[in-house]
Amino acid sequence: MPRYALQIEYDGAPFAGWQRQADQPSVQAAVEAALRRLEPDAPGIAAAGRTDAGVHATAQVAHCDLARDWDPFRLSEALNHHLRPQPVAILQAARVAEDFHARFSAVERRYLFRLVSRRAPVTHDRGLVWQVRHPLDLAPMQEGARHLLGRHDFTTFRSSMCQAESPVKTLDELTITEHPVPQGSEFRFFLRARSFLHNQVRSFVGTLERVGAGGWAPDDVRRALEARDRAACGPVCPPQGLYLCGVGYPQDPFSADPR
Amino acid sequence: MPRYALQIEYDGAPFAGWQRQADQPSVQAAVEAALRRLEPDAPGIAAAGRTDAGVHATAQVAHCDLARDWDPFRLSEALNHHLRPQPVAILQAARVAEDFHARFSAVERRYLFRLVSRRAPVTHDRGLVWQVRHPLDLAPMQEGARHLLGRHDFTTFRSSMCQAESPVKTLDELTITEHPVPQGSEFRFFLRARSFLHNQVRSFVGTLERVGAGGWAPDDVRRALEARDRAACGPVCPPQGLYLCGVGYPQDPFSADPR
Repeated sequence: MPRYALQIEYDGAPFAGWQRQADQPSVQAAVEAALRRLEPDAPGIAAAGRTDAGVHATAQVAHCDLARDWDPFRLSEALNHHLRPQPVAILQAARVAEDFHARFSAVERRYLFRLVSRRAPVTHDRGLVWQVRHPLDLAPMQEGARHLLGRHDFTTFRSSMCQAESPVKTLDELTITEHPVPQGSEFRFFLRARSFLHNQVRSFVGTLERVGAGGWAPDDVRRALEARDRAACGPVCPPQGLYLCGVGYPQDPFSADPR
Repeated sequence: MPRYALQIEYDGAPFAGWQRQADQPSVQAAVEAALRRLEPDAPGIAAAGRTDAGVHATAQVAHCDLARDWDPFRLSEALNHHLRPQPVAILQAARVAEDFHARFSAVERRYLFRLVSRRAPVTHDRGLVWQVRHPLDLAPMQEGARHLLGRHDFTTFRSSMCQAESPVKTLDELTITEHPVPQGSEFRFFLRARSFLHNQVRSFVGTLERVGAGGWAPDDVRRALEARDRAACGPVCPPQGLYLCGVGYPQDPFSADPR
């Protein structure tokens, strides 16, 4: 069966996460249902990152096997037709080699976290950012973030439900930038690694927010990391500011159609 | 009675516009209801721009008269408490002189229009942008926009329901910028004038979109303007990409509290 890679954008709010579940709506089930409108026997799909409930994506990647030889552009158009009115869109489709696997072939995941600091409630970005009502200082957050870069045992920043074999990961980037919003600031956290532990990004952001608020010193982040103890972590922040915004492969599946 | 200016942000989607109406939800009625939770006899309020149904604001300005001597910060906090969970937020409040009038004292209005061009449906920005599915060229839109700058009879770009005494207005700025979005482009139109005719911004953007798509030449915008004929206008674009993002006064009411 020909294999296709799909780049998928979604608003996580109405979903219990990426992964198919018996009794709750999921992004995976939405995409699979659209695929089965095209081919009733289409098998299940796999994705690069199994995002949690409420987490968004602008560039999730999944692969699917179909019986027909689909033109990639027509495939994305047909899927978008059947996905409406759900907030899930296929941004690109591409024919890929049979050994391409959206999850196991991936060599990098990129996440964005959007954190808004202002007194008044957000209106347009409700459900799209995490809002705190106190001011935050950028420089201490950046200083705290530097302790997390590189290869570490991230047990402190790992959910107790994490199924990864090892807590040792390499964080390649954690950049924080500040952007003005009306009467407040938005802080954007860009993170990049081969893979992440469960709740790792939200544990980082929740901890660094404490640094930005002044409750933690930047050096406390290093001490928390070195503790290798889940109890040393700051509060895990809520999911609605988190976006899976890129997945890297040895060869970009969307750069050219190999047929 | 002490007079207060309010800077108001709102998502226009659930409202029939700014202006109070007998049988439909409006932003004005929402803010007035919150004011009457503080002071049951609070009179009605006036705003700088009476935005249409579905139009957003990040910096609408209204004024209100209250019996009590409110601390401006506490006033904004109390109003935000009573406005929840509606997508309306008071970003700032300030005590102003008795002759300050949110509408008649204003000397400038600033609008932003967000237009997204890409094939796949938008997900996160649904209801917050106008989406077209074809590509648009920035340079011809910028060239067409230049014909609109300055003082003109804007009859072509004026709704038949417009109540302004004269169709002659001065457009001080119409800047268009392009920003990448996943698999597409967002075009942001910034407009600035002392005042605008009814549907003027949406008539401009709908016409310039035709130029960006190649259906109109940039010079056709000049010809449409010179026709002074509503029938010469391009299609009026939908409201959900439009934001009232600033109101100018001879003295910024929020720059200092004059008490």
